[in-house]
This record gives sequence, structure tokens and C-alpha cells, in this order.
Amino acid sequence: MVERLRGFRDFYPEEQEIRSDVFRTMKDSCRQFGFKEIDGPSVENVELFANKSGMEIMNQMFSFRDKGEREIALIPELTPTVSRMVAARKDLVKPLKWFSVQKFWRYEEPQSGRTREFYQLNADIIGSESYLADAELISLGAYILKSLGIIGFTKIRVSSRILIDRLIEKYLPGKREEVYYVLDRWSKISQPDRESFVKENGIDLGVLSSFVDGKILEGYDDPELQNLFKIRDFVSSSVGVDIEIDLKIVRGIAYYTGCVFEASDREDKFRSILGGGRYDNVIGQLGGENTPATGFAMGDVVLENIMKSKGLWVHKGGKQIFLAPIDQQGRIYSTRVASVLRSIGLKVDLNVMERGISKQLDYASKMGYEYVVILGENEAIKETVSLKILSSGQQKEIPLTGTDELFGAMK
Amino acid sequence: MVERLRGFRDFYPEEQEIRSDVFRTMKDSCRQFGFKEIDGPSVENVELFANKSGMEIMNQMFSFRDKGEREIALIPELTPTVSRMVAARKDLVKPLKWFSVQKFWRYEEPQSGRTREFYQLNADIIGSESYLADAELISLGAYILKSLGIIGFTKIRVSSRILIDRLIEKYLPGKREEVYYVLDRWSKISQPDRESFVKENGIDLGVLSSFVDGKILEGYDDPELQNLFKIRDFVSSSVGVDIEIDLKIVRGIAYYTGCVFEASDREDKFRSILGGGRYDNVIGQLGGENTPATGFAMGDVVLENIMKSKGLWVHKGGKQIFLAPIDQQGRIYSTRVASVLRSIGLKVDLNVMERGISKQLDYASKMGYEYVVILGENEAIKETVSLKILSSGQQKEIPLTGTDELFGAMK
Repeated sequence: MVERLRGFRDFYPEEQEIRSDVFRTMKDSCRQFGFKEIDGPSVENVELFANKSGMEIMNQMFSFRDKGEREIALIPELTPTVSRMVAARKDLVKPLKWFSVQKFWRYEEPQSGRTREFYQLNADIIGSESYLADAELISLGAYILKSLGIIGFTKIRVSSRILIDRLIEKYLPGKREEVYYVLDRWSKISQPDRESFVKENGIDLGVLSSFVDGKILEGYDDPELQNLFKIRDFVSSSVGVDIEIDLKIVRGIAYYTGCVFEASDREDKFRSILGGGRYDNVIGQLGGENTPATGFAMGDVVLENIMKSKGLWVHKGGKQIFLAPIDQQGRIYSTRVASVLRSIGLKVDLNVMERGISKQLDYASKMGYEYVVILGENEAIKETVSLKILSSGQQKEIPLTGTDELFGAMK
Repeated sequence: MVERLRGFRDFYPEEQEIRSDVFRTMKDSCRQFGFKEIDGPSVENVELFANKSGMEIMNQMFSFRDKGEREIALIPELTPTVSRMVAARKDLVKPLKWFSVQKFWRYEEPQSGRTREFYQLNADIIGSESYLADAELISLGAYILKSLGIIGFTKIRVSSRILIDRLIEKYLPGKREEVYYVLDRWSKISQPDRESFVKENGIDLGVLSSFVDGKILEGYDDPELQNLFKIRDFVSSSVGVDIEIDLKIVRGIAYYTGCVFEASDREDKFRSILGGGRYDNVIGQLGGENTPATGFAMGDVVLENIMKSKGLWVHKGGKQIFLAPIDQQGRIYSTRVASVLRSIGLKVDLNVMERGISKQLDYASKMGYEYVVILGENEAIKETVSLKILSSGQQKEIPLTGTDELFGAMK
């Protein structure tokens, strides 16, 4: 038997229906924030990613040569595609507020929170250099976490590369790369490892610690820090969520230029749920006009892990009705009944097997349906339906024309 | 500037919002018919497609060798994946009614109705050998065309490979391959080409013509033909759509075994919108238990062409509100107003640029928004909003607490 590839996933209905709810919540939230959906190719020229995505992503690309000898890649992230799309059109009214939910691929070792194929929501505001754009984006991220019911289990942290650069320049000059490296890994590496790294690289541990605990910001006056305070107030007011300013947030990806932020579970048991920031140089580097931009991405894998750990990975689907014909007249009549019930918006499954009523009831029960509508010659002549509630075994006959109200309640 | 690859598409919001409506209509229709959503990998081992998908698909595959030296392919169709998923699980309650909407890839010359990357709805019923399953699937296809508003411009035609095989056996013995070939291309090739093909292959043109116009079926008694009549009656009763029995429908793909069907525009100006049929042998061939199955696929490219040609490619989105703060107090207040309006389900865009009110109004108008809510110190103190209707220029002040009703009407 041919098997599924490693790091790829099959989603059977019981899983997919939940995922579908989650993606719909993401999309509806984006629309409520005035974001518009876009979509682009899953395959792009590798050059689009070269030098923009950073070495980690470049090394993990699913890239190959197509039949026309082009070097192409399954997209590992959306920012280069969005930037290409913006650069290609001069007539777009800015700022743009765009989102999409689609698949991405990375050739890395499958492990907890990482698969080779995954879905990601991307949301971007393009054409505004104001802190307001970062604040609106973080609000959207927080609103989605709220709508998914997990905001209480997560924390959102924000920082700024401009601010960190200024602090390094002032307190640890010449050590930018080393400080970024150690801040980014602070909670992932052990204290002895941190200390030996700091020592080897000639960094003052006391000063570095004041980056980590934020003490360095006390009494520090800087317009970029003021912007972070304004972002914090904006998010608190627009979605009622408190975010933390935390200089350990630097984000690994090469192209960030200003505000950076991420959300993770409060206990830091999982990887980050969403991450993003300002990338003001990418569109210009790709040949477009210089255009400020900020955005975030939110993957499905960590989100699923966290929601499952909190018992929130459940489907909120409408009730299902199964139509079970018991004879030839019932079978013909069932198509009409299906038509009536679907026209009032109900989810109606219809028997499509040559089998008797007991096997049909068995199937409906195994499928977890709530209601079975039994249809035979009797019902067809009288234009009624016999409704059976599976949980109680209760059964009653109702006129087909009077189903509106009853079935309205079943939705 | 790095360009998009040939045969791939970018979807900007004005296009994508319509596509999103169309996909949602497809998915909602499937759910109303009791179908459940599934999802699978976009990349599979090439072996999954070998010998099952037919030479046309095999030659057009986007296949490549990954970093682990595996021969893999971007999926050209869903049936092999669905079959693999069914074969891998013995505990599934059958019949399964599954659907998915996802991307597929074929390396072929881009042309009208064909792109290298496209979306496709797939719907399948697995585990029923009854004509009822085919009838339910065709009803679903017709219901989707109805929901999209194009059923009046399309025709649905059905046939059966079992029936065609029996007729060939009886009237044109030994000519199966040739008859399939010419029936499949009947409306695509010219009359002289048809006649010379028929002559060269020693087929009786008179008999063949009676396949084409259906005269061969007059007075012919056959259980498979009876099933086609039953399918026709079922579809007529369940969705009020008339379908035609047409022996020219054979469908190119290698694996079909029984009932086959397709929908196309009435004038045959475009390729087919949807096509499918019964594939009872595929799951067994892939190493699973022998399981009867039937399904169809509906691509986005031809559908878009037809909907555009009929002026039906339009977005039915809710109204958009833009919040325009005119001073610092208004800016702070706007986050609260956004929160209130979003909480009642409205789509709210908020200014995220440092710009004055006239530039904000200009932006809102270019974006096609209906309503602008102007917010300043005055509104913040009085807890009101100043609503401006862009089409009429009308403006009025309303208390924030009384917006429920008013904004309810704006949805």
C-alpha cells in the first residue's frame, strides 16, 4: 500500500470539521477588522525567497527544478508573495489590510509543533508607518485568540528592534548580533549555557540581565518606547487584552525592522502561536516602491496543540438529520422531503444504500446523528414525516408542511 | 523584479472576496447534503498516481525528487488520496460522504479554462454500490449550480460505462477503445474528421450515430438503463433539475467503472464545469478492501469563466464601516467604538495612518465603504458617534449606547 509522506497529515471529518470552524473564526475576525482576503500561488520562483527569508527558511525550502528547468519552491512563508503582489500594482489604495489562510511547506524534521505541511493565517497592513498599524494588527491577533476561547491561557509580548538597537548601541556597543542571539534563545537554553555564551562573547552579564527583566527601560525616554506604550493602551482599549513589553522578543526572521511581537501559552510549554512585526524594507528590496508594512502569521499546528490541551478542540456543528426510507414509495418521497428540509437550511443526510430500516438506524446512530426521519408509503400518502429522536427513542408523526417551526428549532 | 510563475494566479481582494463567496456556497451546500469535510496532503508519493490516474494526468504531473531522494508530486487530483485515506482506516462507518475544496496542480500549457494551479471541489460517496449514491451526488452538483445562480445556463448529462460497454458488445463488438475515443471527442472534432476516423477504424457510422443521438436506447431493456432513469427521476424530485441521458459522456479518466456524468454550459462554449462518476476498483487497487465509490470534481477556472460571462461574478459582502478619528481624543475613543461595533458583528475598518480627516474620507470613498464614523473630542466626551453616509453626504450624531439598532440595519 502506498503510504502518506512523513510530516504530512490526513484530516478525517472528525478532525477537519473542527479545523474548519477554527479557520472560519480566523477569517470572520479578520473581516470584522476590515481586512480583505487575498490568495496567491503555492509555488514561486526560489529567487523570491533568496536573501529575504533568512538562512533558516532558505535551508528548509521544498525547492525543485520543474520541467521547464526553472528553480521553484513550495512557499515557506507569505511575506515575499504579498510583497511581490504589492510591488506589481501601483494602483492599490493604501493602506492595504490583507489576510489569507493557506498552506505552507518546510522541509524540516517533523516534531511536536512542526510538520512539513501546515496552514497559516497571515494578516498584514501595508502602506502605514504608524504605530497604529502595529496596534491594530496585535488587536486582531488578540481578538482571534479571544474568539477561539484561549486568550486566558496565552500572553502577548511586544518589543521593537529599533528600541533594542538603540539600547545595545548605548549600553553594549558592537555586540548587536550576539545580544540578539542570546535574547532570542533566553528561555530555551540553560542558565550555565547562557552564562558561558555571555562570557565567551565579552558581554556584561549585569547589563544583559537588565534587558531580560526590562529594568533597563526604567526612566529611559525614547519615542520608540513611547510607541510601545501607545500600542499597549490601544490593544487594551480595543480588545480588552493586556500585552507585555518584553525585550527578549526579537523574532528570528531576518527582515524585521521595527515593532515585533508574539503570542504564546502562559506556561511556555509550546512554541509561539503567532508571531510578526514590521518589515519596512522588503517590498522595496523586491523591486517595488519603498513601502512600510507590518504583519503576523499564526500557524495551525501549535494552535491545535494548545486548544487540545485545554479541551477546546471541539466541533460546534449544527444538528444532523438522517432520512430513512422503508419502502419504494418512501424512497421516492424522501427526495422531496430532503428538498424541503434543505431549503430551510438544515443539514440532511439521505440513505444511499440498499438496506433495511434497522441497518439505517444503526448507521445513523454510529454517525452520531440526533434525528432520523422515517419515510414509507404511509407518510408519502399522508404527506407527513415520522420523526425519531435517537437519544430518547421518542417518535412522532408531523405534517411535511408544518416542519418549518419544528425543524427550525433543530438547527 | 521576481515575477509570478506562468500558469499561476494572484488574487487581489476584489477577486478573492468573490471566490471566497463561491467556495463558501460550495461548502455550505455539501454540508446541507450531509457531506463532511476532509483534507489531505498537497504532496504525495508519485506511486499513488501511477497506473490509476491515466496517462494524461501522469504526463502532466508536477513531480520532483525531494531532499530525501523520494519521488513526490503535487497532487493532480484527489481520488487517489481519498482512496488511500479510506484504505488506511478499517473503522470508518460507511457509506462515507466526504468533500473538500483545495488546490491541485498540472504541468500543462496554460490556456482558456486551464491553469497550472487551480482549486477544485471534490465530493465522494464511498461504500455504496447503489444508483442512489450516484443520484445523490448529481443532486448535490445540481444544487451547487442552483445556489451559484447558474443552473439555468447549464446542462447536466449522465451516462454509464456499463451500459455503453453492453451496447458496444452487442452492436459494435471489438471496437470498445475506438468508440470511447470518438464519443469523448464528438463535439470537439469536425464532421469530416469524425467520418474519416470512423472509416479508418471500420466502425459502422449508422450504428455509431444511434449512440450519439440516443436512438439506440429506444426499446432497449437493461437494468443499467433503468438505473439511469431512476437517477433522472431522483434528481428531478430532490432538486427540481432535469438531467439528460447522453451516451457521448464517457469521461476521459481511466478509472471510471459505471455511471459517469458532467455539467457544462448550454452552448458548449466552455469546458465542462463538473465531471465525475463511479470508480469501484480504485480503493482495492491501492491495497484497501474492495469498496464501491462514486464522486465528482468541480474546478474554479471554468466556473469563473461562466459566471463572469453571465455577469454573476460579484461579491455579496456586508457593508463596511470606517472609523475616522480627527484628534488624539478621537483616536483613543475610536478603539472603544471599534470594540463595540465589532462585538455586534459589524465589519469595522479603523484609521491606521497619521493623516487628517479629508485624506481619511478620501480613502474611505476609494475603498467603496458606505459609512464613515467621525470621532473627536466632542464625541468622546458625550459618548456619541458622528455617522456620515458617504453616498448622500448625510451626517448625524448618535449615542454610542444606542447603536445596536441602527448598526443592526447596516449589516
